[in-house]
Amino acid sequence: MNPQLVRTISEIRNRLVLPRLRDRTIGLVPTMGELHAGHGALIERARGGCQTVVVSIFVNPIQFDRQDDYEAYAIDMAKDVEFCAALGADIVFAPSAREMYPQPPSTFVEVAGISEHLCGKFRPGHFRGVATVVAKLFNIVAPNKAYFGEKDAQQLAVIERMVADLNMPVEIVSIPTVREPDGLALSSRNRRLTSEERAIAPVLHQALQLAADYIRGGYRSAEQVRSAALAHFEEHPEFQVEYLEVVDASNMIPIAVIDGPVRIAAAARLGAVRLIDNVLVDNLTV
Amino acid sequence: MNPQLVRTISEIRNRLVLPRLRDRTIGLVPTMGELHAGHGALIERARGGCQTVVVSIFVNPIQFDRQDDYEAYAIDMAKDVEFCAALGADIVFAPSAREMYPQPPSTFVEVAGISEHLCGKFRPGHFRGVATVVAKLFNIVAPNKAYFGEKDAQQLAVIERMVADLNMPVEIVSIPTVREPDGLALSSRNRRLTSEERAIAPVLHQALQLAADYIRGGYRSAEQVRSAALAHFEEHPEFQVEYLEVVDASNMIPIAVIDGPVRIAAAARLGAVRLIDNVLVDNLTV
Repeated sequence: MNPQLVRTISEIRNRLVLPRLRDRTIGLVPTMGELHAGHGALIERARGGCQTVVVSIFVNPIQFDRQDDYEAYAIDMAKDVEFCAALGADIVFAPSAREMYPQPPSTFVEVAGISEHLCGKFRPGHFRGVATVVAKLFNIVAPNKAYFGEKDAQQLAVIERMVADLNMPVEIVSIPTVREPDGLALSSRNRRLTSEERAIAPVLHQALQLAADYIRGGYRSAEQVRSAALAHFEEHPEFQVEYLEVVDASNMIPIAVIDGPVRIAAAARLGAVRLIDNVLVDNLTV
Repeated sequence: MNPQLVRTISEIRNRLVLPRLRDRTIGLVPTMGELHAGHGALIERARGGCQTVVVSIFVNPIQFDRQDDYEAYAIDMAKDVEFCAALGADIVFAPSAREMYPQPPSTFVEVAGISEHLCGKFRPGHFRGVATVVAKLFNIVAPNKAYFGEKDAQQLAVIERMVADLNMPVEIVSIPTVREPDGLALSSRNRRLTSEERAIAPVLHQALQLAADYIRGGYRSAEQVRSAALAHFEEHPEFQVEYLEVVDASNMIPIAVIDGPVRIAAAARLGAVRLIDNVLVDNLTV
């Protein structure tokens, strides 16, 4: 059965009155469309854990620091709805920008600390835009659970902190990154790579794996680990590395000495495309 | 019957599960304690409009720009609970600061524009703290309606804007200012006035009424109206006026030319006490 495609806030609220009165568990998978197997893993997990599954598709203008990046999101709604149908989603909520922002917004949710590092440094206002739209979606859908991918680990940390600080009544479920066989993390942006770029794109993940190997091998200086990983890019000048950092896995803030669970997180531009990835090292054997 | 006094977030949520399942209307009256007849008007209105009435009592540390002002709030909980009981409230929610902020908060709700004028200019971070704690209370209590006084008209405008921008599923109900027979707006701060200060305190409201009379009399220049109202303080050097502004009634932003509904809003220090007040002029006959 095809999921119901809902375009307005009043309609999605009406559509959820009955499931809520019947005490059904409502799961939300927030996306920006161009759905791929990474989103699929989120929807499948929601399908397994909730009685009513809502997938939102909304390219949120206020989280983009670059207009060209915003405009590059070209959603094929029929295709995305079909994708959701195949995975058993009940509702696709795809509001227009005017429906979500009927007037220029004055209210923003800011998550200090976590938002200021890594992507936050290179995309001013990005996490403010993300936190704000996720707060809106939570208020509109009022889900019991919401599903986010670990590929956007800093986004996940921002949202977890927002939910805790503001006592939002929703459980955040995180899902491991889905990868291509060669290690490249799935992303809507991958399709914008040229075939030459696509061929070398896995270098990003390789560099992170190399850093993880150094840590598992006993290195405890974040700077040494970084240097080793950055050296891996020297043979691939096509990459412009924005950052590569060893961060505390719990809050995504860069650290100097590795003495607990960490993520190695990086962003790099490959041609016109900005790629991000991260790997977790949570089992320090030394 | 005495209202139930609830101290923790988990308990208030549990206490509201059944009313919500039974589709009862839940009303929230957020306060900082030291309850007076102004709060009473909010509770009575909630009692009339809702099946379950929650009064929250929480002196929110993050909305104070001055530590001495924060510390001057001395709640007599037994007295406040009795006050709520007499008006038929069902639950008094009075969490500790540690319950509301178990860790230093990283997440803040900012309402740009409205927050930057009037009190926002003199109390940096104040409305950010207000918006943040109200968002928390809304997420904790999940009321259908929430009640705020027009005496804090800028606060009301900030909250209305936050609710609209973030799609919070709550109806904001505003209640006219309750005044002493001599015109002084009720406030917890009034009891900190000396008897000499109390005697001249109504001058603040008189100045605002004077401004309103000028507008009703045909004056359309905000600057002329301001000057007339400020002149009223010349005989009362005990007042230090922080601001006195003619603002758009819909968004509380100062205007120059009066051509629609306005409020005249002012803040003044009288000895150690900061007083605020405002009057609405919404019926321009010229």
